[in-house]
Amino acid sequence: MENIAVLGAGSWGTALALVLADNGHRVRLWGQRAEQIEEINEQRTNEKYLPGVRLPEAIDGYHDLCAALDGVSVAVLAVPTKAIRDVLQKARVCLAAPITVVAVSKGIEPGTHKRVSEMVVEEMGEWLEDVVVLSGPSHAEEVVLRHPTTVAVSSPNMEAARRIQDLFMNRHYFRVYTNPDLVGVEVGGALKNIIALAAGISDGLGYGDNAKAALITRGLAEIARLGCALGANPLTFSGLAGVGDLIVTCTSVHSRNWRAGHMLGQGKKLDDALESMGMAVEGVRTTKAAYELAKKLGVKMPITEVLYEVLFAGKDPKEAVDSLMARGKKQEMDDLMNIFAEQ
Amino acid sequence: MENIAVLGAGSWGTALALVLADNGHRVRLWGQRAEQIEEINEQRTNEKYLPGVRLPEAIDGYHDLCAALDGVSVAVLAVPTKAIRDVLQKARVCLAAPITVVAVSKGIEPGTHKRVSEMVVEEMGEWLEDVVVLSGPSHAEEVVLRHPTTVAVSSPNMEAARRIQDLFMNRHYFRVYTNPDLVGVEVGGALKNIIALAAGISDGLGYGDNAKAALITRGLAEIARLGCALGANPLTFSGLAGVGDLIVTCTSVHSRNWRAGHMLGQGKKLDDALESMGMAVEGVRTTKAAYELAKKLGVKMPITEVLYEVLFAGKDPKEAVDSLMARGKKQEMDDLMNIFAEQ
Repeated sequence: MENIAVLGAGSWGTALALVLADNGHRVRLWGQRAEQIEEINEQRTNEKYLPGVRLPEAIDGYHDLCAALDGVSVAVLAVPTKAIRDVLQKARVCLAAPITVVAVSKGIEPGTHKRVSEMVVEEMGEWLEDVVVLSGPSHAEEVVLRHPTTVAVSSPNMEAARRIQDLFMNRHYFRVYTNPDLVGVEVGGALKNIIALAAGISDGLGYGDNAKAALITRGLAEIARLGCALGANPLTFSGLAGVGDLIVTCTSVHSRNWRAGHMLGQGKKLDDALESMGMAVEGVRTTKAAYELAKKLGVKMPITEVLYEVLFAGKDPKEAVDSLMARGKKQEMDDLMNIFAEQ
Repeated sequence: MENIAVLGAGSWGTALALVLADNGHRVRLWGQRAEQIEEINEQRTNEKYLPGVRLPEAIDGYHDLCAALDGVSVAVLAVPTKAIRDVLQKARVCLAAPITVVAVSKGIEPGTHKRVSEMVVEEMGEWLEDVVVLSGPSHAEEVVLRHPTTVAVSSPNMEAARRIQDLFMNRHYFRVYTNPDLVGVEVGGALKNIIALAAGISDGLGYGDNAKAALITRGLAEIARLGCALGANPLTFSGLAGVGDLIVTCTSVHSRNWRAGHMLGQGKKLDDALESMGMAVEGVRTTKAAYELAKKLGVKMPITEVLYEVLFAGKDPKEAVDSLMARGKKQEMDDLMNIFAEQ
């Protein structure tokens, strides 16, 4: 039994808190909003993010960040990627000793093009014991129902990854694999949100499963191209944090990025779509970051480029998806070879 | 404009006949059942297989196989795989000159372990000009609605594959890529039906999208392992005929294999499930063939093995899926490396 802090009381942070509680740990679930923490502690619910779910007694809500971190050696970082630096700057000053940070948010930072683990290293400095990332096909809504779920963990220090594997893994419903390819695991998790937005647009336009499968297939290829340019192992994109997470995010109604794309496909404006979600839609910022990164590295990412134009340059979603379909005759293997050979 | 025969008036044969008709060709759609052909010619419908669809005038139903083949240089072979040898034996004797056969059925023959193109070569002998296979994420139900669809074609003679690409491709909704990896394209198309059965069982048991995504990811790995042992290019499994077709078959309500698996997961008996489908469920025979082949070649295929036990040895579906989840801690990359290294 260990005391573990989970920073961020959204749906994913809460679901992982529940897994840790099920595994016999005492969990301090920290959130920014006082009334939400009160609800967690008094009602044992977190209705906005996980309606209908009763939280185990081993989860305590915390509104004070330093109190949540007091004496813990592991903190799970589950805030939206754009809040990471701010939260870590506040967390760092609370600490009496270095801690291990388990990063579970997915994204790439526009401007700096840093992965989440890189932001953690920068912000934590000497207060970081180890950074571990956790990613894979795992809708929070199913995890809290204890439906079978499988994820991958990675770290610059694989000994730390194995410690985190032991904390989260159980025989009942939550399986954790280790994967030494940190770059691949993070890039797969971040970029799948771009393709989920595009898949949502395709579905919102009324195109079918055939079109969406083609989009996912070509999306996987462009994720792998960028990942390999950044030093990832191409095999990772055939695994849980690659194709696994991509499938679940593009085909499930639980996916926020898919839902935001779906609204765009049906003709809603971006701002209206984001506002009606009421939760972070990581794919929007990640599209910007990946677009910039692809330009910088000279990697071809046709879906990302077209989506960037839809999100940030007012391109019509139907025109965008049609332009992806209407290309000349092609030899598929050329495309696939490019994943490995282009850079 | 060309006269093209389509042998097999099920949903896929009929949908491809419609694509060819849309592209300006005259199509002879041959089927075994006289009343179905009468319906096609008189009502312009094929209600059992594609309810609500009006067939173009350029499609003529044929009940006489030799009449359908008279003077054509291309025949699309769209009968269930278990009927292929019988139909080709009857077709061969009608011919006055060799023809090109476009094989669009998906499966591997139990006992012989032959791919569809190999059966075509064996049965046609000197009456075969070329054999081309066509595969990819393409539910017939969406093709007839002219929803955007993308497939791959392959052949031992890629010049023939390019001719077939030209016949089927249009700018409106049907895109055709060429891929020189014949073995990979056929194995991907055949084996995805096994994983679709397993995914259907998981869904029928009430497990969620997380579990299904994990199953699809590991299914893709074992398809690739067997394919590579048979000489396929591993990259093909990251393309349309690999992951693309796998996704669409495992996540769409249109998939018969998924639907059959879903009934098994809900507790129906295999025979009852198959009977209530009323159409070929290719995955059942393919599971047997792949199981035999994996044993023969020493390839590990845990999902195929467990599904074989469910289908042919009375294993409980819930126990089967649970046994796939309940394995020891693992290093994911070992699994992924095995795709390429195991043989």
